[in-house]
Amino acid sequence: MNRERIAIDMDDVMADASKSILHIYNQQFGTNYKDQDFVEQSFYDVAKDNYQLIRPKLHEKGFFRNLEVKKGAVEVVKELNSKYEVFIVSAAMEFPNSLLEKYEWLHEHFSYISWKQMVLCGDKTIIQADIMIDDHEKKLITFTGKKLLFDAMHNRTLNGYHRVFTWEDVSKILL
Amino acid sequence: MNRERIAIDMDDVMADASKSILHIYNQQFGTNYKDQDFVEQSFYDVAKDNYQLIRPKLHEKGFFRNLEVKKGAVEVVKELNSKYEVFIVSAAMEFPNSLLEKYEWLHEHFSYISWKQMVLCGDKTIIQADIMIDDHEKKLITFTGKKLLFDAMHNRTLNGYHRVFTWEDVSKILL
Repeated sequence: MNRERIAIDMDDVMADASKSILHIYNQQFGTNYKDQDFVEQSFYDVAKDNYQLIRPKLHEKGFFRNLEVKKGAVEVVKELNSKYEVFIVSAAMEFPNSLLEKYEWLHEHFSYISWKQMVLCGDKTIIQADIMIDDHEKKLITFTGKKLLFDAMHNRTLNGYHRVFTWEDVSKILL
Repeated sequence: MNRERIAIDMDDVMADASKSILHIYNQQFGTNYKDQDFVEQSFYDVAKDNYQLIRPKLHEKGFFRNLEVKKGAVEVVKELNSKYEVFIVSAAMEFPNSLLEKYEWLHEHFSYISWKQMVLCGDKTIIQADIMIDDHEKKLITFTGKKLLFDAMHNRTLNGYHRVFTWEDVSKILL
């Protein structure tokens, strides 16, 4: 029997992009926001136009290369990789400098993931999989398989998805 | 009605990779091979181990950035782009230096293609589309939609596929 295929997102699923964005935001605007501050309002609703001012930082070299790995990701993805057909799928094409950086980041932190399992795209509607783990509704909404919404500071007001808060949650559901 | 989705390969479909490979090969081994020399035998069957000696050149910076555009590609892909949902899908992940180069190459020569339409992957089995244009059997063999094999110096002994020799052929079939 063929193994089920999982498409796993990178930013705010495997890599802690929010932590780096908050760090840049706090430095720029003298605030002291933490991830936990965004429960009843999403980060984007609070940051509004100010977010657009720091967004160019995401296009700079090094941003994606230096993201921290989310807790538990290395271990759980490794287990998933032995049970499922795992693809790492990142909508990276908006950030051309991120392409090589994402490849290198995966190679460094998830060395058991082969280049054959990596996909960098712009629009995930082209992805054919059984399960998708993502933090953005726009990626999940058109996907017809099983969906897990990875909790993030910009999606906490979103309902209607099976929300996972940690990689331990993913493990409990899929392993 | 939704438009049909086409996944179009880059190397030896949009970009003349074979021309550059032959140029490198001829320089390295003092031969004078031309594309038309490979009809009853594929290039790889003739080149054998020698090809492995020049393969590192494909990993060098600039190789993919400087490929020539195949004749008619710009015009026909543009027309396809208005009738179909076009994705440019390249199994580029084996060549990390090619990732940004392929993005830049597309942006330069096919400026009407948005980053949302680009996919760089390692294994095309994850691609969901109605039509696939590719020059490699390993990409087409598992694809379940309509398949067009783009003629190339390494696939001329291959039977069982609808072969197109030029972008004009593609136009006649799909436009």
